[in-house]
Amino acid sequence: MRRFVIGQAKNLIDQTRRRRPQPHHHNNLRLLSLLRPSASDSTTVSSPRLFSSSSSDMPGSDSSSSSSIPVTLDSINPKVLKCEYAVRGEIVSIAQRLQDDLKTNKDAYPFDEIIYCNIGNPQSLGQQPITFFREVNKLAWYFCFWFVPCIGHELTCAIHLSQVLALCSHTALLDESATHGLFSSDSIDRAWKILDQIPGKATGAYSHSQGIKGLRDAIAAGIEARDGFPADPNDIFMTDGASPGVHMMMQLLISSEKDGILCPIPQYPLYSASIALHGGSLVLSEENQRDIVDFCKKEGLVLLADEVYQENVYVPDKKFHSFKKVARSMGYGEKDISLVSFQSISKGYYGECGKRGGYMEVTGFTSDVREQIYKVASVNLCSNISGQILASLVMSPPKPGDDSYDSYIAEKEGILSSLATRAKTLEEALNKLDGVTCNRAEGAMYLFPCINLPQKAIAAAEAAKTAPDAFYCKRLLNATGIVVVPGSGFRQVPGTWHFRCTILPQEDKIPAIVNRLTEFHKSFMDEFRD
Amino acid sequence: MRRFVIGQAKNLIDQTRRRRPQPHHHNNLRLLSLLRPSASDSTTVSSPRLFSSSSSDMPGSDSSSSSSIPVTLDSINPKVLKCEYAVRGEIVSIAQRLQDDLKTNKDAYPFDEIIYCNIGNPQSLGQQPITFFREVNKLAWYFCFWFVPCIGHELTCAIHLSQVLALCSHTALLDESATHGLFSSDSIDRAWKILDQIPGKATGAYSHSQGIKGLRDAIAAGIEARDGFPADPNDIFMTDGASPGVHMMMQLLISSEKDGILCPIPQYPLYSASIALHGGSLVLSEENQRDIVDFCKKEGLVLLADEVYQENVYVPDKKFHSFKKVARSMGYGEKDISLVSFQSISKGYYGECGKRGGYMEVTGFTSDVREQIYKVASVNLCSNISGQILASLVMSPPKPGDDSYDSYIAEKEGILSSLATRAKTLEEALNKLDGVTCNRAEGAMYLFPCINLPQKAIAAAEAAKTAPDAFYCKRLLNATGIVVVPGSGFRQVPGTWHFRCTILPQEDKIPAIVNRLTEFHKSFMDEFRD
Repeated sequence: MRRFVIGQAKNLIDQTRRRRPQPHHHNNLRLLSLLRPSASDSTTVSSPRLFSSSSSDMPGSDSSSSSSIPVTLDSINPKVLKCEYAVRGEIVSIAQRLQDDLKTNKDAYPFDEIIYCNIGNPQSLGQQPITFFREVNKLAWYFCFWFVPCIGHELTCAIHLSQVLALCSHTALLDESATHGLFSSDSIDRAWKILDQIPGKATGAYSHSQGIKGLRDAIAAGIEARDGFPADPNDIFMTDGASPGVHMMMQLLISSEKDGILCPIPQYPLYSASIALHGGSLVLSEENQRDIVDFCKKEGLVLLADEVYQENVYVPDKKFHSFKKVARSMGYGEKDISLVSFQSISKGYYGECGKRGGYMEVTGFTSDVREQIYKVASVNLCSNISGQILASLVMSPPKPGDDSYDSYIAEKEGILSSLATRAKTLEEALNKLDGVTCNRAEGAMYLFPCINLPQKAIAAAEAAKTAPDAFYCKRLLNATGIVVVPGSGFRQVPGTWHFRCTILPQEDKIPAIVNRLTEFHKSFMDEFRD
Repeated sequence: MRRFVIGQAKNLIDQTRRRRPQPHHHNNLRLLSLLRPSASDSTTVSSPRLFSSSSSDMPGSDSSSSSSIPVTLDSINPKVLKCEYAVRGEIVSIAQRLQDDLKTNKDAYPFDEIIYCNIGNPQSLGQQPITFFREVNKLAWYFCFWFVPCIGHELTCAIHLSQVLALCSHTALLDESATHGLFSSDSIDRAWKILDQIPGKATGAYSHSQGIKGLRDAIAAGIEARDGFPADPNDIFMTDGASPGVHMMMQLLISSEKDGILCPIPQYPLYSASIALHGGSLVLSEENQRDIVDFCKKEGLVLLADEVYQENVYVPDKKFHSFKKVARSMGYGEKDISLVSFQSISKGYYGECGKRGGYMEVTGFTSDVREQIYKVASVNLCSNISGQILASLVMSPPKPGDDSYDSYIAEKEGILSSLATRAKTLEEALNKLDGVTCNRAEGAMYLFPCINLPQKAIAAAEAAKTAPDAFYCKRLLNATGIVVVPGSGFRQVPGTWHFRCTILPQEDKIPAIVNRLTEFHKSFMDEFRD
């Protein structure tokens, strides 16, 4: 049997070779092998009989060792090669090497730490988790730990609950704020409600591919409260952050290189990256929501709305409006426009990046296309349950009157007002720099200053075979330990040079960052001024 | 500016239309719109000036409403249409509807619960989480909660630690086993070690795209201990379960429909699904590891080894051998064979499906291809941190002498021996059924019985426009509430009929399942016997 099958496989490979001759021998073969061994495989394998079944099986005696490494850049998916992801690109790799070297080699550098301003990763820069979200999530696991052994035994459960509460009461040993932070009454209540929504209270089980129904109910209710228009829990697909949702939709919607995507510029590299991965191509995009809705409606475009920064608005006179709210307020319903809204727990004031939670709200698709979206979601089974719980919590935070409401609001407003302050300080500092102009950050987590680079610097960059903005950013990193992203990764207007810098370093670090940035820029300009 | 951009976009759309005429008007357009609104967008948008900028913008007055829903099955990615995923397919949708209806309509059915035997989801069927893994994970978050507010203040940290320990000591209020289960000394120690490995102790931050370095060190050490051959933490890519890793490699390696994948049959639908998604095609595969390694080596094939069931071996005389161990023991090194091993926390005796953790070990690729794998991993930023922690724990469980070792071994062996018992009971029951033959389950979590269906049943299935095995499985579900997967989803040998059934229902449920299954099969055969 084995020989027979090997024989068949060899024939297939030969057919493949005949079908598509290739330049290099090691590229001849585009067959991969994929194995899930059973216990029985594993053992027959280790029997010497097979090993010595033919002398040509002996290591070393193989004639075609040139074909040993079958995969080269020429032979992998060209779409992967095309894909660029600046936010975690070369500069981040350099930063990671520097960070490793700093541990042992502190004196070799003019800085003692790497400050990652390349990506919206608040807690890596010291932002505190929102107590309520963490405590409910923690308590859900905590209770579940007690609960699981006694599913179906209400009496035992009651005892377990009292035990948990006894435990809670004894946290009086800890300082007051911590006790409150850990066990506010509404978070305990919420944790139990959430557990009740999880089939069998099994937080360690795969959920429905769209996410736990009860949690999707909470999200839909949150969207309704936000927009004033109905939302359907069956339109919610929970994801491990926004990125997998975006990939899912790209995979579904892009069927060839001829498919175009209208994107805002500057754009987040996730889109150019995943569009490239799935074989689409960018074109310019428009900035006005209502115009865009009309435009999409008229032209029959699918509107994919990244709304992960819906909580990050720093100017009092401005307010977030979801595309769905805008479309519905224009009188466009399910039948008028196909709209997907992406949300994530990684942004906002919560910044729970490491938990990988989010959802997409999918409206205006026919039921047969919806089934295809569900199928694609199913292939990865489900998103992680902690992330699902947090996603439901950020869309249903504490309400006035809840035990934890005041502390929750204090934390939320503390973070958002601090972000606004940091944005202003950094923007003003950047605008003071010679040849740098920076717009006011009214939302999100980033500044995107434009640098008017001297010709000498551009020439030096060309000599170093790198883009001028990348050249500037590498110099910045090596001189200050500050990691930013070159504008070229964001499809900046050709001939202009920018970098993206987050506003996330903690307030007490901002002055030092401003100083380092200012000193570096001065010396850079002194070196390259025309 | 806005008008100008709209104008440009319209021209582009017209060009697209000219470039590829299509059958239906609503298919003319393959442009999507992708928006990340800034605060400023949101407000300008809501100004009435724009809304009324032209009467044709008014809702209702749109002439091209036929193009309102741009996406149809003809216009989505044909690869998505081609993709099948039986494990969560039609039968699971029916089961979910039945489950909803059962809540309100119990008397309408001959069963009072749905038993999901379609997928390896142990905790959904009542399997207990392994205490050690849960407690370390929980304590890591727990300590982090105390720790975060005082990063860099050793004194405060010490106080916080003592507070946590004080809290632990007071769990004496709870019953002994629970106390021990929650706070074994080595789990507390482990939790702190893990926190020390997380930069800034920020469990809520994005990690390195491959996963937290310290956790990858633990995994590499675990692989070395398992195989007796070196493993490199830089070869480890941590993932949200095994599936995203498989997709990542498929995306990288499949560049056209001409690319072939050698797959074992029956195969797990994840592969046919994700191969179809990425545009490859299946061919038969071989079963013998050593032969396969030689075959891949000679033919220059990439070997993708799904090794998620490495702990699920139920026969004393058989043992799991990783493909890497087999290859290395044959004298094949990095330069000889390209090998990717996938591992998941969802299987084994741990079954932590809901946490979505896993990793792939990538060996034998050139550094430039490795960079491409890293890039693809980066586009999704990182896998969730809880899953990363659990993945490191399952590869570095308690050792003899550790406080929790005995209870850990008791739980592990309890689960594995119970799985072996359940496998045997179900297999024997299935073999007793008229026309059913079932192989012994020596590993993993499934039985794959072959059903010799009567011609009458096959005719009835054809009349119902469904595959005979799907027909049988739907009948089984509707009669018993037991959810299994038709063999057609696993590319069974044409002309044969199977279903896949997990061995995961808890032991006390097995007799009832056997009875229901037996009764159903009898009446099915009575109805259709030729």
